[in-house]
Amino acid sequence: MDFLTSITAGEALGIIASFSLDPLQITEVSLEEAAFRILAEEIIAPEDIPPFSRSLVDGYAVKAKDTYGARESAPALLLPKGEIPVGEATEKSVGEGEAVYVATGAMVPAGADSVVMQEHVRRSADDLEVLGSVRRGENICFKGEDIGKGEAVLPMGKALSPFDIGVLAALGITRVRVFRQPLVGLASSGDEVVPVEAHPPLGKIRDINTHTISNLLKAKGCSVLFAGIAEDSLPDLTDKLSLMRECDMMLLSGGSSKGQADFVTAAIEALGGEVLFHGINIRPGKPTIFATLWGKPVFGLPGHPVSCAMVTLRFVFPLVERLKGETPPAHGRVIRGTLATNVPSSFGVEEYVRVTIERSAAASAVRPVFAKSSVISTLSRADGFIIIPEGAEGLEGGVEVEVYPLA
Amino acid sequence: MDFLTSITAGEALGIIASFSLDPLQITEVSLEEAAFRILAEEIIAPEDIPPFSRSLVDGYAVKAKDTYGARESAPALLLPKGEIPVGEATEKSVGEGEAVYVATGAMVPAGADSVVMQEHVRRSADDLEVLGSVRRGENICFKGEDIGKGEAVLPMGKALSPFDIGVLAALGITRVRVFRQPLVGLASSGDEVVPVEAHPPLGKIRDINTHTISNLLKAKGCSVLFAGIAEDSLPDLTDKLSLMRECDMMLLSGGSSKGQADFVTAAIEALGGEVLFHGINIRPGKPTIFATLWGKPVFGLPGHPVSCAMVTLRFVFPLVERLKGETPPAHGRVIRGTLATNVPSSFGVEEYVRVTIERSAAASAVRPVFAKSSVISTLSRADGFIIIPEGAEGLEGGVEVEVYPLA
Repeated sequence: MDFLTSITAGEALGIIASFSLDPLQITEVSLEEAAFRILAEEIIAPEDIPPFSRSLVDGYAVKAKDTYGARESAPALLLPKGEIPVGEATEKSVGEGEAVYVATGAMVPAGADSVVMQEHVRRSADDLEVLGSVRRGENICFKGEDIGKGEAVLPMGKALSPFDIGVLAALGITRVRVFRQPLVGLASSGDEVVPVEAHPPLGKIRDINTHTISNLLKAKGCSVLFAGIAEDSLPDLTDKLSLMRECDMMLLSGGSSKGQADFVTAAIEALGGEVLFHGINIRPGKPTIFATLWGKPVFGLPGHPVSCAMVTLRFVFPLVERLKGETPPAHGRVIRGTLATNVPSSFGVEEYVRVTIERSAAASAVRPVFAKSSVISTLSRADGFIIIPEGAEGLEGGVEVEVYPLA
Repeated sequence: MDFLTSITAGEALGIIASFSLDPLQITEVSLEEAAFRILAEEIIAPEDIPPFSRSLVDGYAVKAKDTYGARESAPALLLPKGEIPVGEATEKSVGEGEAVYVATGAMVPAGADSVVMQEHVRRSADDLEVLGSVRRGENICFKGEDIGKGEAVLPMGKALSPFDIGVLAALGITRVRVFRQPLVGLASSGDEVVPVEAHPPLGKIRDINTHTISNLLKAKGCSVLFAGIAEDSLPDLTDKLSLMRECDMMLLSGGSSKGQADFVTAAIEALGGEVLFHGINIRPGKPTIFATLWGKPVFGLPGHPVSCAMVTLRFVFPLVERLKGETPPAHGRVIRGTLATNVPSSFGVEEYVRVTIERSAAASAVRPVFAKSSVISTLSRADGFIIIPEGAEGLEGGVEVEVYPLA
């Protein structure tokens, strides 16, 4: 690998962002299958929610002006006119000086503009004594107050939260159009890599990346096709890439040595692909390859487990979001905290530092988990990572930092 | 409901925390099924990771002291003694003044204590010129440096992240003991509630809570048994509770009016259960019931969708974590931000305010989404919620707040 051709993280993200993807495919799912899927349509409310004005409390539907000035020692006297059971439609109406009992959730009759809580009334033989005044609208959720018919309620690209599913349920929408889940192909490579079931002979190690990366991708909403472990040879690598031909994206992990990387780039090119960059000025993760093959994006990820994971989070995930059709939330689940110690870094290199977050009443202390880049246990112990920009030479303890969650 | 018997949020959490649960059941899963499951055993490393000392770069394995003082103009001269291919065991050793080529990931031979990057050497006919010095240990990940044999690597109660799965893969652990997923029973109640497929006649509304709460529970790692929609009648409610008898926890949503709540408490008591509290001084969510039935916990959740969701997040989830056997991360995924406006609240009531988070370079602005408690669309639009303690009368704009993510 020619280290002189390494590009900056920003340049790499720019090339990835401008990769031309096939149009996203759309599928229809039931409400039961819709959670965390990505909406492929804008949802416009077909009706008002609530569909009628409902009482928010147990009490009496009244005209607010009939209660003005009422107090314990000088209650307003109203005429009780029966009740409206929860779940029933009513033809009743409330006239001046009248009151109708409505339990929580019951339909508020025409003519009423507020509900007096039952704790604030006294019943006598024929009268209802209202012991305090209510404002117009008090204790009522008016028809269409939550969602108005015709209102745009959920935008295309939103990952459907349990609450969004609740909104769809409220509107009676039982099927929604969502984007098809991306299918990501994943293969490991390297003569030193054996499957996790094997007992590695001396000189070899078990395949960690397949397990870490496939679980990261599944948690992110992808389907994963595992194509196996490739030897460091052109035929084996082209074979694995061919197995992943129908995938929306291909990931080859491993091959961090120059000889291995040469095989990866040669395999991509032998199949008619083109390497778009090779090497990013980041730590860990420098020997990252990005290519196009059969019109699909291909990443050659570093073999070191931590490098592989960090590159996946920082560079693969933005493309996964595009393949999903997702508009990620603007706040990005970032956790702010105060860096507890100085953290060194090299000028000209964007560095990813795994950190723990220690939360107290006053602040969140962010502490680096220092270790060599190949050490997988640091990712297991960390709560997140911080990004030290390439223009900085380290960060000083006491500064506020943004922590990106790891999973 | 007697509002005088309402308890504080802290008291309610205390009662819930002291609920005596059955011993958790344990099951064994393969690595492919283990992601996000809760470890039911402590994982002790059965071997060293890495299992041998590996090179972190392409370069030459050397004795560091042979390079001390070396520089471009006065290189150290070493004798090259072949190479060690990636993935192969070696009997080679490095003596004084010797160097062996190791690609990234290759086994470092005995005698060597560091690796000089190949960018920092010059090859001549017979010699290797080292152009700079290396420190002992530089560019090597030593045997056992990531994880030492016998080391406790993952504690019981940890939710297995993709990185934890990577640690298990590294160690060759292909099956792990995890806690059985809790089975939570869920039923809606209320004469006003119809299934989402139905077109509700005037006076009735569709069942929102089943969809919101079941998806919240599933995302939290529970299995959900939906027992259906109960009418406000003793036989129907006891019937639904009986359907959920084998569940680890039972949730009845709906029934916020006094009459409906009376049926819920009567049904629990008719089956031999006992109400532990009824009413919490919180907003929204006051008419919450907590009971024991057949030795299992039962929640009567408010019918208002937002109240129901907030009570689930604040009071049901801690019990879900206990049923899962999970030790939640200490930092709790809390996002810190600065409150952008004043937020009023009532003294003596713990209030939950849905907020959006607007992230900028300097800080995260937290803005309340004001609306009546029954309005489901606010949960769909919010990024999280803040808790205003019962001892406060609102919060002032500009203070730092902790935002709890909604999903």
